[in-house]
Amino acid sequence: MPVVFRTLRRVEFSDTDMAGIVHFAKFFLWMEHVEQEFLRSIGLSVSMIWEGERIGFPRVSASCDYLSPVTFEDVMDVELSIVKIGTKSISYDFAFSKETRPVASASLVTCCVGKIANQKLAGIPIPATFRARLEEAIRAAEAAHAR
Amino acid sequence: MPVVFRTLRRVEFSDTDMAGIVHFAKFFLWMEHVEQEFLRSIGLSVSMIWEGERIGFPRVSASCDYLSPVTFEDVMDVELSIVKIGTKSISYDFAFSKETRPVASASLVTCCVGKIANQKLAGIPIPATFRARLEEAIRAAEAAHAR
Amino acid sequence: MPVVFRTLRRVEFSDTDMAGIVHFAKFFLWMEHVEQEFLRSIGLSVSMIWEGERIGFPRVSASCDYLSPVTFEDVMDVELSIVKIGTKSISYDFAFSKETRPVASASLVTCCVGKIANQKLAGIPIPATFRARLEEAIRAAEAAHAR
Amino acid sequence: MPVVFRTLRRVEFSDTDMAGIVHFAKFFLWMEHVEQEFLRSIGLSVSMIWEGERIGFPRVSASCDYLSPVTFEDVMDVELSIVKIGTKSISYDFAFSKETRPVASASLVTCCVGKIANQKLAGIPIPATFRARLEEAIRAAEAAHAR
Repeated sequence: MPVVFRTLRRVEFSDTDMAGIVHFAKFFLWMEHVEQEFLRSIGLSVSMIWEGERIGFPRVSASCDYLSPVTFEDVMDVELSIVKIGTKSISYDFAFSKETRPVASASLVTCCVGKIANQKLAGIPIPATFRARLEEAIRAAEAAHAR
Repeated sequence: MPVVFRTLRRVEFSDTDMAGIVHFAKFFLWMEHVEQEFLRSIGLSVSMIWEGERIGFPRVSASCDYLSPVTFEDVMDVELSIVKIGTKSISYDFAFSKETRPVASASLVTCCVGKIANQKLAGIPIPATFRARLEEAIRAAEAAHAR
Repeated sequence: MPVVFRTLRRVEFSDTDMAGIVHFAKFFLWMEHVEQEFLRSIGLSVSMIWEGERIGFPRVSASCDYLSPVTFEDVMDVELSIVKIGTKSISYDFAFSKETRPVASASLVTCCVGKIANQKLAGIPIPATFRARLEEAIRAAEAAHAR
Repeated sequence: MPVVFRTLRRVEFSDTDMAGIVHFAKFFLWMEHVEQEFLRSIGLSVSMIWEGERIGFPRVSASCDYLSPVTFEDVMDVELSIVKIGTKSISYDFAFSKETRPVASASLVTCCVGKIANQKLAGIPIPATFRARLEEAIRAAEAAHAR
């Protein structure tokens, strides 16, 4: 399970609470923003027209363990890993750290939805060409890791 | 410009920031929630089917003056006044206070939008029956105030 | 593990996203608000002076499974259960539902922190009298459930 | 009143609401983030130790006019201008646009607070050396504009 994407996040004043540290719920927004930044980096999105059809990726589950606090203007490293690509679902892990100190460890499972038979939205298999881009990102990360 | 609606809002932990007080942006969410609670109290909404047509009320402008801080678990009184009902727009004022101490004074202008000629959304005159309910709320408040 | 507290939450316009449903991160705010409302109902808080000492309850972990969507103005029932009271930690479960349809199932673990030996904040045992109130809430719920 | 700082903001999924556009309250968070990014660019902050004393900049007032909507993944240009530096306050204007189309026009007034006579926080004159950095940013922008 190699890291497929790395980015940074800076703590804004509005991310803090009266305890002087980042409010716990904020990490769930960062997870989504980083997922989105990763997908964008390989030409994908959580909400897009793919081969003529609108698809989306609502969240099935989300969790976060808080390991150490961060405060205003701290800059964190964030690493995104793809844990699993199921038929319809994608499982991500996120590692937040500050200068090698672990800050939070988080998971997110999303599910591909699209239109089925002129009906409303429902879970659908991830389109093959969409899946291929995710797999290519994993292969590239594995190759970089093996070097 | 009588007060047409009164309610309460309690400060949640997540509303605070590292300064130990409510973050300024939170008041804009409270304004919308109170607007919505008022509309609901007279059978209206900011997003609804009205006489068979979907209408909405996007925001045209919003402002807030901060008069004194509030902290975790404080309960505020909130008063909503209708300043003006234009052809397409509604102007509200909000007074936040804690035990008669003024906390914030805010304004919100919304605009009625709906579908026009099979086209996309655009500003439309507030439907007459929708407007009538707002005016009835003002008359009821004026009558109560005059007593 | 009986339900120790029941309350309601209404979906605000600002809770929704472009998919037309509640944004997943919002549930983490609701969890905290409901935890707080429960504690307040028995004279406690996540941030308070207790027997002359300031204590707090930062979050150790949080998770949520999304079972079905809710939309603007939906009103959900929320049930809070205390899963475990450890030496320093409290584990809660939350069940969100709408007219018996399950909406989300969530967990939250908090840790008691206070001042230790003139030093900075650290995990401390939950004060005995604080713990007694939580246990009394559990006993009352069990008694009500057994009837 | 020249533009003293330019940056970009991208619309995240969590910034949108069920109308499919950015929720109006989000702009107030962006204003603060951009203010903060500007201050950081000249070695300042809204919450810092300055010449041995802690100072902060709570908000006195905030307003925003909404000119046209933006949607998921849109990237906006944001321009910050310093309208006025008072004895204790700083007034900023913000212009949000997308490919020259105006999106929002906003204002923010902040007030310098610090400790006075061993007492609690109160408004204090902006420290002379802090003010000098702001004025230098204005002069640099005016010089660039004049060229």
